[in-house]
Parts: sequence; C-alpha cells; structure tokens
Amino acid sequence: MDEAEKGKIAQKVAKGEILLHQIEKFAADANDEVEIRRNAVAKTCKIPLESMVSKETDYNALKGKNAENVIGMVRVPLGVAGPIRVIGAEFCGDVLVPMATTEGALIASVSRGMKAINLGAGAISRVTEDGMSRGPIFELNSVVDAHRFVKEWLPKNFNKIRAAAEKTTSHGRLKNIKPKIQGNNLFLRFTYDTGDAMGMNMSTIATEAACKYIEDNFAGISLVAVSGNFCSDKKQSMVNALEGRGKSVVAEAVIPQKVLAEVLRTSAAAINKVNYKKNWIGSATAGSLVQFNAHFANIIAAIFLATGQDPAQVVESSSGYTITEVRGSDLYVSVSLPSLEIGTIGGGTGLPTQKEALSIMGVAGSGNPSGSNSRKFAEIIAAAVLAGELNLLAALSTRELGKAHSKLGRNKKQLIRRKASKMQPWL
Amino acid sequence: MDEAEKGKIAQKVAKGEILLHQIEKFAADANDEVEIRRNAVAKTCKIPLESMVSKETDYNALKGKNAENVIGMVRVPLGVAGPIRVIGAEFCGDVLVPMATTEGALIASVSRGMKAINLGAGAISRVTEDGMSRGPIFELNSVVDAHRFVKEWLPKNFNKIRAAAEKTTSHGRLKNIKPKIQGNNLFLRFTYDTGDAMGMNMSTIATEAACKYIEDNFAGISLVAVSGNFCSDKKQSMVNALEGRGKSVVAEAVIPQKVLAEVLRTSAAAINKVNYKKNWIGSATAGSLVQFNAHFANIIAAIFLATGQDPAQVVESSSGYTITEVRGSDLYVSVSLPSLEIGTIGGGTGLPTQKEALSIMGVAGSGNPSGSNSRKFAEIIAAAVLAGELNLLAALSTRELGKAHSKLGRNKKQLIRRKASKMQPWL
Amino acid sequence: MDEAEKGKIAQKVAKGEILLHQIEKFAADANDEVEIRRNAVAKTCKIPLESMVSKETDYNALKGKNAENVIGMVRVPLGVAGPIRVIGAEFCGDVLVPMATTEGALIASVSRGMKAINLGAGAISRVTEDGMSRGPIFELNSVVDAHRFVKEWLPKNFNKIRAAAEKTTSHGRLKNIKPKIQGNNLFLRFTYDTGDAMGMNMSTIATEAACKYIEDNFAGISLVAVSGNFCSDKKQSMVNALEGRGKSVVAEAVIPQKVLAEVLRTSAAAINKVNYKKNWIGSATAGSLVQFNAHFANIIAAIFLATGQDPAQVVESSSGYTITEVRGSDLYVSVSLPSLEIGTIGGGTGLPTQKEALSIMGVAGSGNPSGSNSRKFAEIIAAAVLAGELNLLAALSTRELGKAHSKLGRNKKQLIRRKASKMQPWL
Amino acid sequence: MDEAEKGKIAQKVAKGEILLHQIEKFAADANDEVEIRRNAVAKTCKIPLESMVSKETDYNALKGKNAENVIGMVRVPLGVAGPIRVIGAEFCGDVLVPMATTEGALIASVSRGMKAINLGAGAISRVTEDGMSRGPIFELNSVVDAHRFVKEWLPKNFNKIRAAAEKTTSHGRLKNIKPKIQGNNLFLRFTYDTGDAMGMNMSTIATEAACKYIEDNFAGISLVAVSGNFCSDKKQSMVNALEGRGKSVVAEAVIPQKVLAEVLRTSAAAINKVNYKKNWIGSATAGSLVQFNAHFANIIAAIFLATGQDPAQVVESSSGYTITEVRGSDLYVSVSLPSLEIGTIGGGTGLPTQKEALSIMGVAGSGNPSGSNSRKFAEIIAAAVLAGELNLLAALSTRELGKAHSKLGRNKKQLIRRKASKMQPWL
Repeated sequence: MDEAEKGKIAQKVAKGEILLHQIEKFAADANDEVEIRRNAVAKTCKIPLESMVSKETDYNALKGKNAENVIGMVRVPLGVAGPIRVIGAEFCGDVLVPMATTEGALIASVSRGMKAINLGAGAISRVTEDGMSRGPIFELNSVVDAHRFVKEWLPKNFNKIRAAAEKTTSHGRLKNIKPKIQGNNLFLRFTYDTGDAMGMNMSTIATEAACKYIEDNFAGISLVAVSGNFCSDKKQSMVNALEGRGKSVVAEAVIPQKVLAEVLRTSAAAINKVNYKKNWIGSATAGSLVQFNAHFANIIAAIFLATGQDPAQVVESSSGYTITEVRGSDLYVSVSLPSLEIGTIGGGTGLPTQKEALSIMGVAGSGNPSGSNSRKFAEIIAAAVLAGELNLLAALSTRELGKAHSKLGRNKKQLIRRKASKMQPWL
Repeated sequence: MDEAEKGKIAQKVAKGEILLHQIEKFAADANDEVEIRRNAVAKTCKIPLESMVSKETDYNALKGKNAENVIGMVRVPLGVAGPIRVIGAEFCGDVLVPMATTEGALIASVSRGMKAINLGAGAISRVTEDGMSRGPIFELNSVVDAHRFVKEWLPKNFNKIRAAAEKTTSHGRLKNIKPKIQGNNLFLRFTYDTGDAMGMNMSTIATEAACKYIEDNFAGISLVAVSGNFCSDKKQSMVNALEGRGKSVVAEAVIPQKVLAEVLRTSAAAINKVNYKKNWIGSATAGSLVQFNAHFANIIAAIFLATGQDPAQVVESSSGYTITEVRGSDLYVSVSLPSLEIGTIGGGTGLPTQKEALSIMGVAGSGNPSGSNSRKFAEIIAAAVLAGELNLLAALSTRELGKAHSKLGRNKKQLIRRKASKMQPWL
Repeated sequence: MDEAEKGKIAQKVAKGEILLHQIEKFAADANDEVEIRRNAVAKTCKIPLESMVSKETDYNALKGKNAENVIGMVRVPLGVAGPIRVIGAEFCGDVLVPMATTEGALIASVSRGMKAINLGAGAISRVTEDGMSRGPIFELNSVVDAHRFVKEWLPKNFNKIRAAAEKTTSHGRLKNIKPKIQGNNLFLRFTYDTGDAMGMNMSTIATEAACKYIEDNFAGISLVAVSGNFCSDKKQSMVNALEGRGKSVVAEAVIPQKVLAEVLRTSAAAINKVNYKKNWIGSATAGSLVQFNAHFANIIAAIFLATGQDPAQVVESSSGYTITEVRGSDLYVSVSLPSLEIGTIGGGTGLPTQKEALSIMGVAGSGNPSGSNSRKFAEIIAAAVLAGELNLLAALSTRELGKAHSKLGRNKKQLIRRKASKMQPWL
Repeated sequence: MDEAEKGKIAQKVAKGEILLHQIEKFAADANDEVEIRRNAVAKTCKIPLESMVSKETDYNALKGKNAENVIGMVRVPLGVAGPIRVIGAEFCGDVLVPMATTEGALIASVSRGMKAINLGAGAISRVTEDGMSRGPIFELNSVVDAHRFVKEWLPKNFNKIRAAAEKTTSHGRLKNIKPKIQGNNLFLRFTYDTGDAMGMNMSTIATEAACKYIEDNFAGISLVAVSGNFCSDKKQSMVNALEGRGKSVVAEAVIPQKVLAEVLRTSAAAINKVNYKKNWIGSATAGSLVQFNAHFANIIAAIFLATGQDPAQVVESSSGYTITEVRGSDLYVSVSLPSLEIGTIGGGTGLPTQKEALSIMGVAGSGNPSGSNSRKFAEIIAAAVLAGELNLLAALSTRELGKAHSKLGRNKKQLIRRKASKMQPWL
C-alpha cells in the first residue's frame, strides 16, 4: 500500500469511522496494518509515536498468535549475567544468563553472586518435580455424588479420561488428577507432562476434552469452569507450593569463608542472620505465604522477559524459600522454587530476540529428548536466582560489618551513601 | 571506533582475556560497548545475535541507569486495548490502554470487556490509599527495650525521624511508621508519599537515613537489614493487602442485562456463579492468600511491560479481589487492588517506547500537582483489570449457556473447540 | 493416710521442703496425693480450694496417664443439642449431641439449626478422607541426596519402612508418605490409619521407628525432629486442608423455603448473601487461610470438651468452609471440615464423664469394625457444625428482614436489643 | 420435687411428649430440671448417666448464663505447672499455673521448662497491645460512597459513633476503627478497651449500636452483618496478627549454657537449629500462616480450660512465633502471641472451679485498676507458653545429642524408646 492510502485509512480510524480492530480488513498485510493503526492512535492522542516503530519486525509472523491491535514494539535493555557454573542433572557447564530489565544494578549484582558461587564449586541444581496443571471446578447435586465420583468412578475411569485428554495433543501426557471435594463442588487438578512447552494451552485444551468426557459419562456432574483457580495459574498458592507447577527446582552452593570475605565482604554468620530474620521472620510477620525469600521475583522477571516467558507467571514462579546454614566458617545456601513455569517452545519464545536469548544458553526450541531443554533452563534459572539471593543477603549483611569497619576509621556516611546507591533497586 | 578494532576486542573477550564488564574501558561509548559485547557473546556461544541489534537505541542514555552488561534490546509486541470510559476522581474520559504481550487473545479479550463496560456507564475508579513503604528490621537486647521504643521513644521522636528521612529527598514525604514487635526484634514499616514516582529507591534512601538516626539516638537498637520483608517488595503479603502499598485502587461497573446478553452472551447470574465458585471458593481451596481473582496478573503484566514499570512488582500488584452482585438482571462487578505499585517517572518509564506508551494515556512524566499522573494511571489500570475480569468470567460462564444452546441444536463439539481456541491463553 | 499425716506433708510442701511432684513419694495413693497437693497449694496461695475437690473421682485411674501435679477436677456444664437427623455412610438416625460450654446461647442456637435441618430431610454427612499424620524433618548434605532419596530410595524401600513403623503398633497402618524437599532438608509426611483412636501417639511412635530405619539405611540422612511442623499438629495449615488430617468430612442439607421462613425467619437469598460477604469476602480480607466459616470453632470446642478430645486440636479441627446456594427458594448449605481430629478411644475419652457423653451418641470405645465409631462420630460432628452455621447465618441475615419488618411498624430498637442479647456469645 | 414426679416427667420426655428444652416449665428449679433431663436422656439412650451427676453444682447459678439443655457436668483433671518466675510490667513474682488437661506429660513438661527458666533469671513478659475487636460488614451502592465515607464522614463523625457505642457499656471504651474497602463493601474493625473482661459480648453490643448510628446518619449504607469475619473471632487471621486482638504479649528468657546442659540436656545451638528448621521452615512449608511455633496450643488450651476462658478462642489465641538466638553458649528464646483473648471476669471465669484456678494466680475477678488482672494473667500465660516451647524444643533437640551419646556406648534403642514414651503426647 502507498503512504497516502494508509494515511487515509488512519484518518478514518482517528475519526472513529473505522474501528481499531477493523483495520485489518483494509490493510494489505500485518505490517501495513500496524503502521496504519499506530498512525491512527498517534493522531487520536495527538502525539508522535515514532520510537515504537520497528522496521526489523515482520508483524505477519506475530499476527493471530502473540498480540492484537498491535501498534509497534516495546524495547527493553537486554544484558547478560555471569557466566555461572551450573552442575545440574541435565545441564552441566558455565553459562551466561540473559536478563532484560530497566532496573540498574540488578544484572551487576547477580553477576557478583555468580562470581562468588563459581569461586566455590558452582551451583548444584535439580528439578525435583515437573508437570503443568489445570484445575476445573464441577458441581454436583450432593456430596454423596462427589464422594462416589472420587472414590469409585474416577479410579475406574482414569484411563478413559486420560485417553480423552491426550487425544487433543501430540506432546502432552496426563500424569495424574488430584481431587478435592468442597460440599457439592468438586475440584480436579489435572497435571500433564508437556515436553519443552510451558504447556498451559495444551493443558487447557486437553482438560476441556477430559471434562467433556466426564460430563458425558457421569450423571449429574456439571462443569462450572475449566479453570477453578485450583490450578493455580498466575496466582500464588499453597497447592502450587505443595504439589508443584511447571518445574519444582532447587539450587544450592557452599561458599567458602575466603570467598565470603574477599568477594562479598561478609561472613557466613552475618548472611545466615539476615536470612533468618528477614526472609523467615520478616516474611512470616508480613503474612507472605510462599515467598520466604529476598528477591526471587527480580531475577525471574528479568529472565522471563529476556526469553519470552509469560510475565504474568512471574507471580507464582517467584514463590520459594531461601535457606542458609553456617558450616564451619563457610556458608551453605539453597533456593527452592516449587512452581517455575517455563518453556523453550511456544508462547513468546519464538520471537526473534527472545529466541536469541534462549540460544545464548543453548536451550532454544525442542530438546532431545523432549522436555530436556526446559529442564536445563530450569536448572540455570534456579542457579541464577541463587546468585541473586546470595548477593543481596551479602550486601544487606555488610551493614553489620560496615559498622565494624567504621570503627577502624572508615567514613560511615560514605559507606552508607555508597550502599544506598548500590542497593535500592533490587532489594 | 572502527569495526576491526571492535572485532579485536570482542575476540579478546571471547577468549577470556577481557571480562564482559571490562569492555567499557576499551570502548569509545556505550554503543560501541554493546556492539563489542554482543559480538563477544555471539562468538562464545557460536550463534549469531542479530535480531537483538537495535540501531535506533542510544545506549549512552541507558548506561549506569537501567541495566549492565547490555548486549542489545528485547522487543515485545505492543498493542492497545479499548478505548475504555474511565470515571475516576482524577481521570475522566475515554482512553486507549497500551499492553505489551506475547499471549495471543489477551488484548482482544480485554477490549471486549471494555466494550461491555462502555455500553453500560463506564468504569468508576477510585484510589483509596497511596503510599510506598520500606520495612527495616532491627534487633534489641530485650522486648523491654522494643516495647519502650514503640510506646515512648517513637511517638516522641517521630518528627526528628521524619526530618532525617526527608532530608534525603526533594519529593518524598514520610506519612507514617507502623511498628511490629517480634520478641527482641522490631519491624518498622515506613510509608512515604512519593509523588509520581513508584518511589522504591526514594523510600529506601530515606529509610536508611531514618535508621541511622534511630541507631544514633536510641541506645541498644541495631539495624539488621533496611528491608526486613515487612515492606513487602516484590512479594505478596497480607500487610500489603491490609495497609496498601503503592496505590490501593478500586474500579466498578454495572453491566446491563442487554449488554451481558448481546456482547458477552451470558447473564448476571451465570457470571456471579462462576465468580463465587472460581475466584472465591477456588482460590480459598488452593490456598491463595491475596488473589481472589481470575487473571489480574495478565493485565497488570502487559501494562507494566508496555509502560516501563518494574515487572517483578507484578507479583504484589496483581493481588486483589473480584466481587460480583446480581442487581435485578444486571451485573455489578468490582475489582479491588490493594497494592498497585506504579510510577510515571523514574525506572523504565523514561525509555523511549515506554514513554510513548504512557503518553498514549496522557500520563507520561510528572503530573500537576505531583502525584496526579500516577493516580490517573492507577485509575486507568484498575478499569482495564475490571474489563479483563469481566470478559474472562463471561467467557467461562458461557459454558453454562453453551449447554442450553446445544440442546437447541447447535453443535456442541464446535462450541467447545471454539471456546478452547479462544480461552486458553489468558485463563 | 490419716488427715494429720497428710496435713504435715502439705505443710512441708508449702514451705518448699518437698517439691510438688515429689508428693507422690509420701502419699499412699493418688487420691491422697491430690489431697495433699491441693492443700499445699491452698496454703501457699492462702486461698481455700474447695470447689475443685471431687470425691467421685478416683485419681489412681488418671495417674501417669492424663495429667501431672493434679490438685482437683475442673467442672464444665454439659448440655445436649438436638436431636439431629444424620444421614451418614456409617451413622444413620436421630442423635443428641453433647456439648460442654460456658457460653450461654450456644447450645440453644445449635439446637435451632438442628430443628430446621430436621424439618428438611436431615443432614447428609460423608467422611471423604481418614488418616492421622506425623511429619518429621531430616537434613542431608545436599539436594542431590534428598532428590535421590525421594526418587529412588523411598519407593524401593517403602515396604520396609512400613514394616518398621507398624512393628510398634497393633492398630496403626501406614497408608502413605508424602515427601517435600526444601534445599537440603527433607520433610516426610507419614499418614496412618489409626482405627478408632485419634492416633497422634501411635503415629509418633511408629514414625520414630520408621525414622530410625531410614537413618540406619540411607547414608547421610539425619533426623532433625520427629515433628517438623509438616504434620501439622495443633496448627492450622494448608497441608492439612489439602491432604486431610484425622477425618475429612462434609455435611450438607437443603432447607425448604417454608422452614427458612417459619423456623429461621429468613430467606435463602438473605442467608446466601451473608455467607458470601462474611464467610468468603470477610475471611479473605482478614487474611484467614483455612477458615471460611462463621463459627465452626464454637461447636467443635464444645463437643471436644464434652467427649474428651484434645482441646488443643480445636485449632485445626475448626478449619473449614461453609458453602451456600439458592435453589429456587430453598437453601442448599454445606460445611467441609478437612482436618477433624477425633477418637473414641484413648486420650481423654476414657474419663467417666467424657465416656458417658460419647455413649449418648452410641460411639464410645472401639467400633466394629475398628474405625467405624470414630467415623460415625465425625459424621455427627459435621452435622452439628452444619446446624451451628445455618443458625448463625440465619440470625445475622434477619438483620435484612428486620429492616423490612420495622417498616411494618415493629419497634426497631427492640429488635436490635433482642438480637444483641441473643447473638453475641457465639458469633 | 419428689423423685416420682421427676421420673414421670423424664418418662414423658423420653417418649417425646415433652421436648428437652420444655422441661424447665415442669421443674421446680434448675437442679431438678437437670436431673429430669439427664434421666430422660439416659432412658432415651438406654445408658445410665451417673458419672456426670454433680451434687456440688448449683445449676441455678448457671441457668440462662452458661449453657442450655444441661444434663450434668464434665470433669477434667486440673494440675499445676511451676512455679515460674515472671517479670512482667504488671505481675512480678513466682506463680503456679493451673492447667486442665487429659494429655499425660503436658504439665510435667511445661514444669521442666519453667524450672530451666527459673534457673536463669526468670521470664520477662510484656503486653504490647490490648483491645477487643468486632468487624461488621456494610454494603453501599458504589465505591464512591465507600470512599467518601472513609475519607470524609468517618473522621468527622468518629466521636459521635464512639458516643453511640459507649452508651451501651459501663466498662468498654472505643479505641479506634480500622476501615477496609472491598468494592462497594466496607469493613469497619472496631477495637475496644474492655477492662478485665475478654469483652466479646460488650464489643458486639457496642458495635451494634454504632452500626445503627451509622445507618441512621449516612445515606445509602446498610449493615450486612455485625460480624463480617474481619474481627476475627474464633479464627486465625493476619489482621489479628498484625493489629492484635485481646492481648498482644511477648515473653522472653535467656537460658544459661549450664542450665541447658544440666536441666534440658541440650545446647543452645541444638535448640536453635530445631527451632529454625521446625518452627520456621516447617510451618512455612506446611502453609501455616500465623503459627510459627511448636505447640502454643497445648498450653493455651490447658490454661483456658482451667480458668473458664472460651475454648473456641484457643484457635487464634494460639497464634504466634517462637524466636531463638544463640548468645555465646546461652540461648535467647522468645514467644510472641499477637491475639491472646482472655478475661478474669465474665464468661466461664465465675464458675466455682474456674474461679479457684484464677485465684491460684491471684488474678480472679476485677483488677485495680480495671484491666490489670487480665494483663497480669496475659503476662503469666505468655511465660507458661515460653516454658512449654523451650522444653519441647529441648526434648526434640536431644535427638542430636542422643546420637552423640550413643557413640559413647549408650543403648540407642533404649534412648529412643524412652523419648518416645515421653515425647509423643505434647509434640
């Protein structure tokens, strides 16, 4: 389309004669469509929208898949932390971790934690559970029916339900169904193996088919909603913490006393104290249910953004626990993330920049065997989270040492000012 | 710098002779630095990293502010939902809402909810609390000291503490301090008015100064950490839900029966039932503490990403409650977000594309009076969240109506397939 | 012993020459011991302690079993509510429910709820899960060991662990072990079938033996504590709510419109509204995790006290959810109690008055088959809790109707005063 | 009444010709009434009910106050723990603590903890907050009205509301009202000073009057229920933990290394480890919200039962946190109970045996000044809870030492058997 033509349509949109989502009917392709829509919005709002223009983007590839009413691309700085040495069950080696963020100091601080971990023996990392869940809610006439369903019908018909579910998907495998009765309501939490995909879509479609099978074959049961918040998607919950969702992953490291002193300028006892008082007593006092940690969310959000994960799932993926122990003069530190929801295929992972970010870690696309790439990715993320926790706890704990230092003649005010400028963004 | 020179340094980095964060010493400016670093990473990983090249970005503007070890820019599709009619205390009018996402159907579905709201009387929106908090933890020798501090010393010295805190900032104002004793530990939750900034940095620096004043003037008190997780930053917590953090905002709408039927193809009773069973019984059963909603996180994450908010704060910003009532045949629906942490200045809001997104809503930069832009923004976000909830509840509830329809001869399979393809991404 | 002799010893105790717990060495039997100790305490405190004298009690039967340093008996009023018609899987019939309480109006109000239920079709009641748990915590050197233990060693050695556990008990049967890894820590939640006993002691002894077997046979694992709070005993927790502890039981009833109007002076819609706003929105707003109910604790505490259950277990036994639905003009109401911890043998159930209370319901002692008495008891308790909830919701909801009535000329003040005097104790 | 006459009426009741609650019409006084009712129940159930006969009880004193449909008295063993040295702000001295329980070993174990505390410097105890709350829920048409109510009307009319509330009570004083908006719903949490009474009734009646004033004077507001579960009564909640309910009380002690070794046969490090792993990591993993302790509920329940407190309030009164620190080789240990709901007048505190139990501690009836008795009582309870926690943590931690001992030749099996028999009942 020529510019005049596009301009004319944009004008009509700005006047309200054509609606935003109707532009596609008038545009030659998605690229024209985006241009027209952006111009229309710019005219309506009376502001130029030039920064979001992205000539390198082919909007035809996004269309109908990643977003609607598109007017451009948001750009977020992408850096790398590390490398970090990860000793996983599936990934072993040194790896740079891509992080997209607008918060200064975050990448630098995670890198410092990684350095300390590397100077020990690296980060050990293990995926302990793996499965994506969807939890529909049904209603029945009476608890009698719900009870009979759970105790008799469900075990007897599990294979048929599974067959119905798996018919919808080439990759998904139904692992189990966890039932929960509430009066005459029945929650069923379906958990699937979804290979390298995060698997939410796959799980929903499969569960809808399973629900249809159930409704067709158990008299008096009726689906209320295919998601009954017993999943729990994009929400923190204890069912996620106890049963896992996505990957349950743990990373740990021992930091020698020498590294604590020289790289982190602190001690095992000082870090252990801050961890206990802040992450455990503090979170409990605040009434946090599944976040006994300092800032998992910072690292999770930056990696999710860099690699095309669903940023709404930062919510439950940042659940978890930081545990420290003083071992002699060394520090043992671990992070446990029960519900890290990630994929290396599907969703935003196929967008050009996001795919490159995954490639930096060697985990873009499907793994061989299926599922191995996403588990490698989980091992790496947990190690990065470990580094972020270690560094922040260390930084906070220097407050203690700081006071000791100031007695030795260092300027206390400077020390505090320096820490302030370094520490705030990622507390 | 010429290409050869940059290539030579990149080569050295790839070989490990120069470290990633040392590149800046050899580069002419931040743009060269990014190019060298990206090339070095590409060489190391043996993959081309061409998509993340962003010629339109001046990295000198980001340097030392938004990220470290930068190698390029991540690009995320930016669309607009709406317009939606918002009737706030500070913002009144129709507004397009920018959303950055890679999840297909999200923007379209929020737009459908907005359409239904507009066909009623629009979304009423109110900021009920406003303030950013930081919650340090102190230790004392005994509860006797902690008790005396809270009952006697703190009220008597509040003004001096405030003066110490406010000396660090031109915009921040200390509103109150909420104390909480746990044994010999003492949490103090400082809450500030931070104008149009989200205000986390400002609050931390001010609180550090306040802590120093306290330590200098109350014998035997000692700061353990300036963040004691009683803030609670980047974590969900009941203290945030009860006291508020950032903006506490509520939006509501009445959807007439006719609009429910024609736009959303459902009824007030059907939506009300899904909301009760899914968002309340379901979340309670799952053990969610502050997310009695369907998918606040989806809308919050997309707007945060579009406008340069901190994506790690999606965690607590997506806390909240969806309440429905059947009023005759109409539907009353409200969303309450106790801890929406946003700003229109600072952080990532100044990046070019993010600033444009804020400009679409007319809330970029400092408002007049200070704070008004961020409150307008809060009113708009709550209205968008309301639209997202309304639409998803409606979509889920059609399952009910769907069954009725299928009796009238419509193809049930088709219906389910259609819903499946529409619904999964943003459940 | 003669009185003079006892008096002499009491005198010595009062002077501190003999310690309270040493009295047993000087007393002929437990009855003398109690008398001496009470007299000594009375002398020390300079108050007569005559009311607590209990001539009908043979302290020899309690000695070494139910309490130490005994000085008498506390007496609590025992009433009966009902009868209520219970339609359980194990108990069917009309039953009086003994309740011990000092809170006026509680028994009367539960009775009113029972009357309304009986005028419908009675209370349907079902035990959906049954098992007592104990959750030790272990530590290992690394998550690698914990992971290997859970994935390989535990499934392979489950039968041996079970054998070790069951060797300690004639009644207990190990049903399953739920593992949970936190860093290098490992929680194992053992669940047992414990017949008609509440089973906490049995479960602890069996679990200690199992832990010993594990420590002896898996290198590097070390028990930290046989109770790691993952049980969770005498605490509310989501693991109890999701997995059950003791009996998980649900009771439900449909209350016809006529009964609502005539007995409870309210309507299905009015009760449904109060239930939604108070028990769901209210509890969520307050930050209650597993008590989306009005006053389960009142009924549970009174029955526990009457029947010799452990009153500390009122804490988690009062967890649960009240769900209402309007069905035409009738009301469907259910209560779900996930962790009702009760027994009909052991603990305080063998004391004379407590055993009589159990006998009133026909559930004293061991059932045939074993376990049937405690499940019958669970069905009855849930029905009583249902009655208590129904009545309180009805009473609160008359506030609505009350306003309507006052328009018809009734004195509003009187109405409120009347309600006040009736309602407060058991809200 | 003569026996024949009473027998005749009992017969009629057993046949259903007279209802249980109608007996009072035919009985000369409450004592006869109880006898008739018990006989009727005995006939109906075909069991003798002789143990519950209590000749020493004058049922006329209970009638219309403490229970309905009374058939006798339940008897529970009453022992004393201690003495314990309490160093409170209101109570200073050594005190025996009455505990009613049927769980063997509980009193003995609390006593051992008390002994250890006494051999240090005693238990320091402080009430940090004091006030009873009632939290009604209102509805309005719109959040606009709710917002206006909270921001404008409530502060302006607080004194009038207070006057309306206080008119109903001679002792209660309204301290503050905490509002919380949820959509068009409004919670108001009224907190009162209630002197020496637990104060729930007083608070409800006063709040009903306040609600009436509000409804009469703010157009469009309507009370849904005088208890909206934002109180939170007989439920655990974060609002209770953060704001306090009843007494918020903290007790602490330092236990010298020598005492740890000789009395408790453990060390500061061993106890500290068990506390961290069990009470903090364990409770967090289980999903407990406000019970980061080992067994507060055991001590609370036994004291409540002994002294006529409301046993349903054991639920939230057992909320709290146990914190330990290693200080050199000594142990610092504290317990924080945010919502201990107790009274020394009213409820069951006036019953003969319960009053004697209060008298043992010198806190029966009204204090001078009013409120001082209940605060003294709170200081004592917290000290007893501290003793119970200390002892249980010590017992669990000897598992560690036990292993060391067994290397020195002691029989491991014996050790475990001994511990098993000692430890189970009160874990």
